[in-house]
Amino acid sequence: MGSAGDEEPERVDGRRLRYRHRREELLQAATEHALEHGPARLSLRRIADSAGVGHAALLHHFGTREKLVAEIVERVLDRTFTGPRVLANEQRTGTEGGPLRALWQQATTGSGEAHVRLFLAITGNALHDEALAAAVRRSLHRRTGLLEAALVRAGCPPPEAGALATLVLGTLRGLVLDRLLTGDTARVDAAFEVFALGLDRRRESWGG
Amino acid sequence: MGSAGDEEPERVDGRRLRYRHRREELLQAATEHALEHGPARLSLRRIADSAGVGHAALLHHFGTREKLVAEIVERVLDRTFTGPRVLANEQRTGTEGGPLRALWQQATTGSGEAHVRLFLAITGNALHDEALAAAVRRSLHRRTGLLEAALVRAGCPPPEAGALATLVLGTLRGLVLDRLLTGDTARVDAAFEVFALGLDRRRESWGG
Repeated sequence: MGSAGDEEPERVDGRRLRYRHRREELLQAATEHALEHGPARLSLRRIADSAGVGHAALLHHFGTREKLVAEIVERVLDRTFTGPRVLANEQRTGTEGGPLRALWQQATTGSGEAHVRLFLAITGNALHDEALAAAVRRSLHRRTGLLEAALVRAGCPPPEAGALATLVLGTLRGLVLDRLLTGDTARVDAAFEVFALGLDRRRESWGG
Repeated sequence: MGSAGDEEPERVDGRRLRYRHRREELLQAATEHALEHGPARLSLRRIADSAGVGHAALLHHFGTREKLVAEIVERVLDRTFTGPRVLANEQRTGTEGGPLRALWQQATTGSGEAHVRLFLAITGNALHDEALAAAVRRSLHRRTGLLEAALVRAGCPPPEAGALATLVLGTLRGLVLDRLLTGDTARVDAAFEVFALGLDRRRESWGG
């Protein structure tokens, strides 16, 4: 199944090929494990067991527990806030709802909620786990940068795009936390709508 | 040290008097313990040890672990968001900064940060601990209600006060989380300021 067109041919040996083909599958299994059991039980051995591979194989694929955890965090935050599909949608959804409402829908429905739940658990645990904390920091920076770029593309003046991206992600994060913990979907959805309307008004002032 | 003016004289016996005089002190010790060690180690025995009382005494004062945890959560969230002193300040601080900026200051400086940290840990653990979850739910409702009433007193139309209170608390929560995890105080403070300016504009439309 190896391809002659690989970008780094000197690295293509048997192990590297296995890595390439199984990596995504294993990362998916590890993420599912974290979604089900929470981050407190994110040990390599447990993940390996649940993915049906050996401990050594997992280490081979991801390097260290820290690196695997970082990739899981990145994936969970990506699915929760500013998933690339949502941001790519920004032009098409401009008229009915826009990308902000698409993000909200993603974070509050179906598997989005499971990702939010894990995100909350991860941030809670990050306070006592430096590997988790570093992963969350990197991922927050990445999310904020992605949204900042999307805002500039949508017409936001660059000097305010960073603060606005931070505000949007912070508000979504705080509101989904309330929604998940209280279950008051109507109250929290109304609060989100107040925020979204304010942002709509702001966007009108950007011109275009 | 008993007083003849107690409100419920029929309940005044020796134990009740001890309860009255030591309760606040013990709650404070338990809260300090949680601030230092996080909610995962909030066992009655550990709290009792650190407060220098027996396990039975603690049960006597607070009923169950669940009730004590609820009081700690309530106290931590009170100190973090919408502390009564901040809300009471709303008239006096109206010109320079206003109550929202006072809340932000409280949540991001000094002991405020320690409370935010514990709040994050509590919400993370709440996902797997129904006693914590119930306490957080009640406390979120109480905080939102207090802020909603303060907004109405400040001129906010009652139909939108609930959504706005939810939005303000959600945004503060999400932003302090970013601030604490990334340490990017300038970026997050700028985001808060964008939010506060938007709310200032909104308040102008309330008339008065």
